[in-house]
Amino acid sequence: MSPSETVFSYKILFASGMSFYKLRVRLGWDKTFEYVKILSEEGYVSSENAYILKITCDDKPGIVASVTRCIAENGGDIVECQQFDDPETKRLVMRLKFTTHEIDAIEFQMKPVIDQFQMNCDIVPESRQGRVLIMVSKMDHCLNDLLYRWNKGELNMDLVGVISNHDVCREQVERHGVPYLHMPVTKETKAQQEKKLLAWINSNEIDLVVLARYMQILSDDLSDRLFGKVINIHHSFLPSFKGARAYHQAHSRGVKLIGATAHYVTADLDEGPIIEQEVARVRHSDSAADLVRMGRDTECRALSRAVRWHLDHRVFNNGGKTVIFP
Amino acid sequence: MSPSETVFSYKILFASGMSFYKLRVRLGWDKTFEYVKILSEEGYVSSENAYILKITCDDKPGIVASVTRCIAENGGDIVECQQFDDPETKRLVMRLKFTTHEIDAIEFQMKPVIDQFQMNCDIVPESRQGRVLIMVSKMDHCLNDLLYRWNKGELNMDLVGVISNHDVCREQVERHGVPYLHMPVTKETKAQQEKKLLAWINSNEIDLVVLARYMQILSDDLSDRLFGKVINIHHSFLPSFKGARAYHQAHSRGVKLIGATAHYVTADLDEGPIIEQEVARVRHSDSAADLVRMGRDTECRALSRAVRWHLDHRVFNNGGKTVIFP
Amino acid sequence: MSPSETVFSYKILFASGMSFYKLRVRLGWDKTFEYVKILSEEGYVSSENAYILKITCDDKPGIVASVTRCIAENGGDIVECQQFDDPETKRLVMRLKFTTHEIDAIEFQMKPVIDQFQMNCDIVPESRQGRVLIMVSKMDHCLNDLLYRWNKGELNMDLVGVISNHDVCREQVERHGVPYLHMPVTKETKAQQEKKLLAWINSNEIDLVVLARYMQILSDDLSDRLFGKVINIHHSFLPSFKGARAYHQAHSRGVKLIGATAHYVTADLDEGPIIEQEVARVRHSDSAADLVRMGRDTECRALSRAVRWHLDHRVFNNGGKTVIFP
Amino acid sequence: MSPSETVFSYKILFASGMSFYKLRVRLGWDKTFEYVKILSEEGYVSSENAYILKITCDDKPGIVASVTRCIAENGGDIVECQQFDDPETKRLVMRLKFTTHEIDAIEFQMKPVIDQFQMNCDIVPESRQGRVLIMVSKMDHCLNDLLYRWNKGELNMDLVGVISNHDVCREQVERHGVPYLHMPVTKETKAQQEKKLLAWINSNEIDLVVLARYMQILSDDLSDRLFGKVINIHHSFLPSFKGARAYHQAHSRGVKLIGATAHYVTADLDEGPIIEQEVARVRHSDSAADLVRMGRDTECRALSRAVRWHLDHRVFNNGGKTVIFP
Repeated sequence: MSPSETVFSYKILFASGMSFYKLRVRLGWDKTFEYVKILSEEGYVSSENAYILKITCDDKPGIVASVTRCIAENGGDIVECQQFDDPETKRLVMRLKFTTHEIDAIEFQMKPVIDQFQMNCDIVPESRQGRVLIMVSKMDHCLNDLLYRWNKGELNMDLVGVISNHDVCREQVERHGVPYLHMPVTKETKAQQEKKLLAWINSNEIDLVVLARYMQILSDDLSDRLFGKVINIHHSFLPSFKGARAYHQAHSRGVKLIGATAHYVTADLDEGPIIEQEVARVRHSDSAADLVRMGRDTECRALSRAVRWHLDHRVFNNGGKTVIFP
Repeated sequence: MSPSETVFSYKILFASGMSFYKLRVRLGWDKTFEYVKILSEEGYVSSENAYILKITCDDKPGIVASVTRCIAENGGDIVECQQFDDPETKRLVMRLKFTTHEIDAIEFQMKPVIDQFQMNCDIVPESRQGRVLIMVSKMDHCLNDLLYRWNKGELNMDLVGVISNHDVCREQVERHGVPYLHMPVTKETKAQQEKKLLAWINSNEIDLVVLARYMQILSDDLSDRLFGKVINIHHSFLPSFKGARAYHQAHSRGVKLIGATAHYVTADLDEGPIIEQEVARVRHSDSAADLVRMGRDTECRALSRAVRWHLDHRVFNNGGKTVIFP
Repeated sequence: MSPSETVFSYKILFASGMSFYKLRVRLGWDKTFEYVKILSEEGYVSSENAYILKITCDDKPGIVASVTRCIAENGGDIVECQQFDDPETKRLVMRLKFTTHEIDAIEFQMKPVIDQFQMNCDIVPESRQGRVLIMVSKMDHCLNDLLYRWNKGELNMDLVGVISNHDVCREQVERHGVPYLHMPVTKETKAQQEKKLLAWINSNEIDLVVLARYMQILSDDLSDRLFGKVINIHHSFLPSFKGARAYHQAHSRGVKLIGATAHYVTADLDEGPIIEQEVARVRHSDSAADLVRMGRDTECRALSRAVRWHLDHRVFNNGGKTVIFP
Repeated sequence: MSPSETVFSYKILFASGMSFYKLRVRLGWDKTFEYVKILSEEGYVSSENAYILKITCDDKPGIVASVTRCIAENGGDIVECQQFDDPETKRLVMRLKFTTHEIDAIEFQMKPVIDQFQMNCDIVPESRQGRVLIMVSKMDHCLNDLLYRWNKGELNMDLVGVISNHDVCREQVERHGVPYLHMPVTKETKAQQEKKLLAWINSNEIDLVVLARYMQILSDDLSDRLFGKVINIHHSFLPSFKGARAYHQAHSRGVKLIGATAHYVTADLDEGPIIEQEVARVRHSDSAADLVRMGRDTECRALSRAVRWHLDHRVFNNGGKTVIFP
């Protein structure tokens, strides 16, 4: 299957006795229905009729009462609620999970509330999987980790495709029935390729772009357009050891801990809001190559958690920082 | 100052410019006002007019809306909200932090709501310090750690006294102006001493008893009466290696991790709801004495976090387990 | 390629400029030379002419001097030395890494030393990869993790084959050019299959058997025969929560930490010498399925480290416990 | 007791049955023998006739054999041996622990070996406690932690005195029978006070100076003179967030992990060889003051481990980095 072909990929959830199963299937151009894989029974199971409500707005009294009233008066049941007022930014951040059979009525009643408090407000069905694009260069450890977790059903993710500036990871991507698009970038073609990339993102209605060791820097313009929708994994420990060969820098310095940082991408390189960080202990006998090896693990762990939380609508941007409701 | 003397111990909070300070003073029988210490400016600072609302009840729709409405309609502002429905116990657990100048009106309006949903409901001023009794035997590391954190203002704690079945820690307790009561226990005197202990707890309106390596087992009856009010630290790793010389058992087994567990005390020894656990790595060259040494650190860390969370009203009992809103 | 076919699998190391590369190739029966993969340049690189010497014996004075003299007098250079006298078992454990061009002379001179101190002594070229059999049932996370690390060159491992009592992981194993042998086990066939298994292990000169979530219990007899050569990963936290559905037990108990233990297999089920342990924090909102998910990560991490250390000759059995020179 | 008085402080080790005890006593000018404290039975117990040998030199073949021969031929028994050749610095680092009744003979035989390989070589009795000066400003958490560990017998430390540029910690130091010297520093008096400090260090034969949140920067000259003898604890995470109010910088950046670094002091501020690092997780709801509070714990843990390892002769300087044999 060539990368330019459109692939329809479905996930089917069904229950058998006490266990839940997921089927992933692929529908080819020829309308054949190709079975791909049964996902783990231990996988991600979302409740039917469950919705996630996300709000950020200026902090004012009465917001929680107004919002929860809209839900209660339409037969909704709040399963989980987390709310935080940031004393510095004076912003309110709220995440609600509720079940209802009357989502339209709730949304209708929410409208004046949203206007009154000038809210950024999203209501999404919990079962709606985020549409994800993974971008990668040559190093495939984060890609491999995400593919495995996705296959196990750990992530609430509809993996729409993988785009790379190299052609080395094609086989391990297409094996899973996921389209792989080779999009080489040179200094000369960068602007043009980014335009193409943005078009692809828009036409595929991508919710999240994961830079899984994608070694090209997005332009300021693209970073701005996609703000809050692109997660990057930074090797070594932000904000230390920026730039090339970070693990080698860390090794030369003789650090006893190395780390990785998953963050939203902004025009200000490596300074975007931090979502998750992870560390590992190193010893004097560990070489720079050992740090790279151990770094792979910390990168996979930090990135997969950040992606998981984002797709579960647990991460909120809040003035250069993030609020995370785990 | 002998343990039988009454000691008045006050904390005074005052602000100077951008910094907050706390004074601890002691008022003797002779009405002299003795300055004890300025607490750290980085210490625990609670908001004025802030209240913590704690609710547990059977899970039903409309609870969050009903409660938050009571607050909103009386000019209250919700600063933080965390709510969780346990799908197994079918219980709802909620913690709200709000500010108001009309707490009486809120409490009045809450009454029918509490009845309607048959809630366990507590509303406490955030600035109200929990009245704490620490119990200790000979090993003083947890006591020392709690005293230091209390002095730094890390804990929302009014330390009413320390009771011990030995007389070895008196000096380090009384030095801080805290009463120390020696209450030796033998097989014969145990029932009588527990009666005395319970009377002391009641007359001093104790909110929390911390067993900081107190090596006597409370009777089933006392454990039941004080349920949810007594935190114990269990050395080594619950539920493994119960009983005496747990670190020596762990050492013989050649474990690579040791741990400590802070839990509420129940009649079922060492089986009470777990609040916090902590681990440390050990090596083949570490002796049993090294495990004891490293165990001291893990015990201090697990216990102090459990105590902190309890005093901040972040721990909820939920059918043999705990819900913790960190 | 069917599992019964013999596969020749080579690794070729070559240097280009400052970087090292490894090629893995496969030689078929028809003498075709099939290129498989270039391993990471950051992979496991062993020194030429480097040897690992492992000794265990009763602790007596003069051992280190006698051994290092044999090396020094034959032009050997000791690169790394670790030695430990266990005060409880009275055993000496030593690991030396040295380089030499006269390994025969060293081995010759070592003979009387080995006799004198009644040593268990092994000298192996560092570049010699351990011949490994992985056994798996249906859950493939540890298998997947080990395959990935092996492909990256992280492990000093010659993966000879994978044996399973199910046929579900064949494709992901054979894809890497590794033979997959389906060896179903029933109560009736167990003795016979173990005989076949042991024959396979012997004829393939297997150094290490990794039970990567292999859900069959080896018989006491097989465990004894293979002692020190079989590593198992135990889900949840040894020595707690033994038996079936360990994560569900842990969830019911409301633990705040879950863990995994990698250990050598002995006839005494789950009581073999511990090599490595790993933990992860869990929350009240994590379901039993979440614990299973997070458990997969801890299992992969504990098992891969144990396998890595074993293959690097860093793990020594020492009276029911292990000595590990990291 | 004023800080200028000379204090004789002894530790007496005695065994009673299976347990070891330590007494700390103080001999006043008037020859009175003042009992201070019984140290924990779980405390630091060193073997009689045990010695630690530390070597650093250029890496050449034959070193281990030559050194261990000197020990073996004089009835010495090597209990623990760790040796490491750094492939980058081409330096050999070795730590031996051995027991002997003929230390003079061993030292005599070592002399030509030391010359031959141009070694830096130290042989110290294990029971010899390092003579330590702690320096502190106003924040006393690391001081308090070290005093507690010293009292428990956790550290192989003879605490000779505490020097501070403030007079706030006097009582908690002198209470333990440890001299406290107030040495205020201004821009004008700095040079003079450092001269006085150096004289004090020399006359008291100090082995290690611990900067336990001492907020004055040592001059380049003093740093050079004392190289390898001064350990500092750096708040927040080196090499990030240098300079003032590091935790507030970290809070503004929205980090998810904070840390502390213990390192040797060099003229190059905060760039000295790292000995140990520690981290703690933080949340969006943690204020800058919370980071300071949690930072205290990480600082105590990193510093106490660094001090412990240094006093146990486990830390070696190696070209801007450290080798640590744990």
